[in-house]
Amino acid sequence: MSEKLRVTVWGENVHEQKHEHIRAIYPTGMHQCIADGLNEAGDIEARCATLQEPEHGLTQEVLDSTEVLTWWGHAAHGKVEDAIVERVQKRVWQGMGLIVLHSGHYAKIFKRLLGTSCSLTWREAGEKERIWVCNPGHPIAQGIDRYFEIPNTEMYGEPFAIPTPDEQVFISWFQGGEVFRSGCTWKRGNGKIFYFRPGHETYPIYHHEQVKLVLKNAVRWARPEGSKWVDSCPRITPELTPEPLEVRGSTLHKAGEAGLK
Amino acid sequence: MSEKLRVTVWGENVHEQKHEHIRAIYPTGMHQCIADGLNEAGDIEARCATLQEPEHGLTQEVLDSTEVLTWWGHAAHGKVEDAIVERVQKRVWQGMGLIVLHSGHYAKIFKRLLGTSCSLTWREAGEKERIWVCNPGHPIAQGIDRYFEIPNTEMYGEPFAIPTPDEQVFISWFQGGEVFRSGCTWKRGNGKIFYFRPGHETYPIYHHEQVKLVLKNAVRWARPEGSKWVDSCPRITPELTPEPLEVRGSTLHKAGEAGLK
Amino acid sequence: MSEKLRVTVWGENVHEQKHEHIRAIYPTGMHQCIADGLNEAGDIEARCATLQEPEHGLTQEVLDSTEVLTWWGHAAHGKVEDAIVERVQKRVWQGMGLIVLHSGHYAKIFKRLLGTSCSLTWREAGEKERIWVCNPGHPIAQGIDRYFEIPNTEMYGEPFAIPTPDEQVFISWFQGGEVFRSGCTWKRGNGKIFYFRPGHETYPIYHHEQVKLVLKNAVRWARPEGSKWVDSCPRITPELTPEPLEVRGSTLHKAGEAGLK
Amino acid sequence: MSEKLRVTVWGENVHEQKHEHIRAIYPTGMHQCIADGLNEAGDIEARCATLQEPEHGLTQEVLDSTEVLTWWGHAAHGKVEDAIVERVQKRVWQGMGLIVLHSGHYAKIFKRLLGTSCSLTWREAGEKERIWVCNPGHPIAQGIDRYFEIPNTEMYGEPFAIPTPDEQVFISWFQGGEVFRSGCTWKRGNGKIFYFRPGHETYPIYHHEQVKLVLKNAVRWARPEGSKWVDSCPRITPELTPEPLEVRGSTLHKAGEAGLK
Repeated sequence: MSEKLRVTVWGENVHEQKHEHIRAIYPTGMHQCIADGLNEAGDIEARCATLQEPEHGLTQEVLDSTEVLTWWGHAAHGKVEDAIVERVQKRVWQGMGLIVLHSGHYAKIFKRLLGTSCSLTWREAGEKERIWVCNPGHPIAQGIDRYFEIPNTEMYGEPFAIPTPDEQVFISWFQGGEVFRSGCTWKRGNGKIFYFRPGHETYPIYHHEQVKLVLKNAVRWARPEGSKWVDSCPRITPELTPEPLEVRGSTLHKAGEAGLK
Repeated sequence: MSEKLRVTVWGENVHEQKHEHIRAIYPTGMHQCIADGLNEAGDIEARCATLQEPEHGLTQEVLDSTEVLTWWGHAAHGKVEDAIVERVQKRVWQGMGLIVLHSGHYAKIFKRLLGTSCSLTWREAGEKERIWVCNPGHPIAQGIDRYFEIPNTEMYGEPFAIPTPDEQVFISWFQGGEVFRSGCTWKRGNGKIFYFRPGHETYPIYHHEQVKLVLKNAVRWARPEGSKWVDSCPRITPELTPEPLEVRGSTLHKAGEAGLK
Repeated sequence: MSEKLRVTVWGENVHEQKHEHIRAIYPTGMHQCIADGLNEAGDIEARCATLQEPEHGLTQEVLDSTEVLTWWGHAAHGKVEDAIVERVQKRVWQGMGLIVLHSGHYAKIFKRLLGTSCSLTWREAGEKERIWVCNPGHPIAQGIDRYFEIPNTEMYGEPFAIPTPDEQVFISWFQGGEVFRSGCTWKRGNGKIFYFRPGHETYPIYHHEQVKLVLKNAVRWARPEGSKWVDSCPRITPELTPEPLEVRGSTLHKAGEAGLK
Repeated sequence: MSEKLRVTVWGENVHEQKHEHIRAIYPTGMHQCIADGLNEAGDIEARCATLQEPEHGLTQEVLDSTEVLTWWGHAAHGKVEDAIVERVQKRVWQGMGLIVLHSGHYAKIFKRLLGTSCSLTWREAGEKERIWVCNPGHPIAQGIDRYFEIPNTEMYGEPFAIPTPDEQVFISWFQGGEVFRSGCTWKRGNGKIFYFRPGHETYPIYHHEQVKLVLKNAVRWARPEGSKWVDSCPRITPELTPEPLEVRGSTLHKAGEAGLK
């Protein structure tokens, strides 16, 4: 049995199929390139899942054996089934890590977990991006110097409509004059979430050595800790009540009945 | 024109209609009792809206003129239309305050804004609850001594599956031996959110003087500050770009095209 | 009696006295320029206090009548008496707002309240800074467009060694290629804290219209809410104990004794 | 070379020396009892340090080889040298974990890291405490059921004057009617901090199996991640400036000069 960190790389796999110049950069798909980068490390075992597969490749079985899920989508957020989004959300609550990439800021799963609109500003001009480390000691920033650069990229700018991150790992500087919170962490239930900005499909971002390094760091950081708690809103019966208690007053629920949801 | 704080009290209005012993406590409905309590203060103007009205009484017009919305639901969370939930969520992002009451922990709007399951444990035994102030200087705790008591109540116990609150205002002690984070704040977009635990329908909780005081404090605390920002994910054109920039590389979007959502 | 917001502008007042080119920009001192800017608004009453005054101008009486304190220091952080720092800290806990400016990131009061080193990187090259709004609806950003610019400034760059801010209001872009979290909020006790980066003494930053606007917004945002709670670690005697309780076991403290500190 | 987690257990070691009934419970000191509990686990190597040793047993060498420090003090907080407190604080910023126990809420190091008064209410009556798990999936709560009980303890009650914790792991219920946030986490720099309430010296709290289990979990959770970043507020010279930049305007600092602190 493998003791490697089990990562599932989810890819929308739409633009690679439609646009020749994107396929030229990612002949096996962006997801496969991301997975290949992760698999360079000896301690990670990354497999892929795509929108077009049954259940988008995210069956309960796949998710149950996934420790960290990475998510890239752009053109087809609306085609992801709500039932699958809920399944992913529950696994995050149980402790599965989630790495949301670039245009995934508008993915259903990201908006559901954060509760905000997740909007931003953008420009597609092939400009330079410099990604600064806000906390050099952070596990996700290991091996990165004070900053790294991406020579050609799409710009994302503030305001980024997110709840305050738990930790700010990276902030980007753009040649055109904008800034953006490019590396942010949150926790929902017991799942660690990391948003990482780079990744526009028209540039070879996922071939970039430092992007690949950040992704390796991020999936390791997001691995589950603790146990897989499945919450169920249990009714506390007399036997479960710690202090002696005499039931008083009128009630809504009969003995043995579950709560309303 | 009124300068009072404009509050809309939303009530599910189901159990009051079905159960004689609940109607005896709230002859005009729980929502009306809550609104009456708020209207005791000279500076608040509270009106009601209920599930059974068209658009659940929450038309765009009603929401646009609402500064703070209070939400009580229990038996019919699933009957609240998703389109209305989204409308409320957008208004919260714009700055409308939201006070979620008791069994509203399972309301669609609360789960969507927080991103977690919002589950808890519960017991209906008419036991005593003592609600402790965690921060005596907090605006929502003004006029409350170190604690106040509710003689008969339903118990809610930890674990309460929420993201860490921005501020912990109250924690409850229960006669049967449990504890619960009974007063919690968060912010989503520019909207302030307050969850307040008391409020089971089989007891006269909303007639309780200190519960009424907390609700008055809470709606004042949650009033909008700043401006009503509607985010739209704008494309930054050359004219909007602060630094001179020459467009390079291949692009996905034609000039004038909006982004993908 | 005045109903204006009572602000005390604290200035170190060292470089204005030593350097001709700084005195040329701030002939009455940086503190007086900051206070003049605040006093342009009809609803604010700003007075000054400086390092050189007895008790640095921050007597208990002055602090007790101060609703918001602004702090600028650079050359003489070490000359601020610890007793005065503690006095300011207690007032913050009670709800006094605190606006920390520019090089005040290394002020004793800021480091004590945040608990981190508050270090950063810096460069004095007269370069351009563009300050982006991260949340256009935030009270402190009102009246500011998407961004504003300062033509000549000292650079501060990430990593900024602070605890995660409660809210990120501004992030700066620098001509030389860096970024910085320029507007951050925290709360300690009931006091609201805002750090605002601009303000190097060799440039006329506090004459800048948008800097003045942000400062007006910030002091209004930081005004005390709720009540002035003075915590005292009280011993709970039998009379204060809510539930009947029989004392058991050995004790450390005699009846009537206070706790150890 | 040992690969065990290196923990230093710091004890004030005052009451054990002065009070016969405390020495009876902790014949080798509370610190030794805590260390013995940790050393039961095969993966932890705990050693002790006490107030009375030179440099309180916390030399730079000891701290540099400590991955997690636990802190218990009560009667002699004021006798801890400021220089040692600063040394500990710097190691926390670098990533050393810190577990603060019981009356350590008033330790200098805890107040410095949190920035608040850390006051609470208290009662010494030998009453029962029930400690509830707020997040059953959290690493610190592993192996604990829904709650555990301590039959005789000192009470600590809300308000607990702390900044909002990053995560709430435990909340206590007391027989006398109070509640308390008994298990809280924060981060300062790269150091993880956990406050754990149980531990009054007149009862055998650190012999309690579940208390010992929580401490084992806590030191493992607090182990350093990432790298030991020592921040230094570096001046960015032209060679370190990413974008070409011509120096303009007047300056305060000569070439090669360090910044003011």
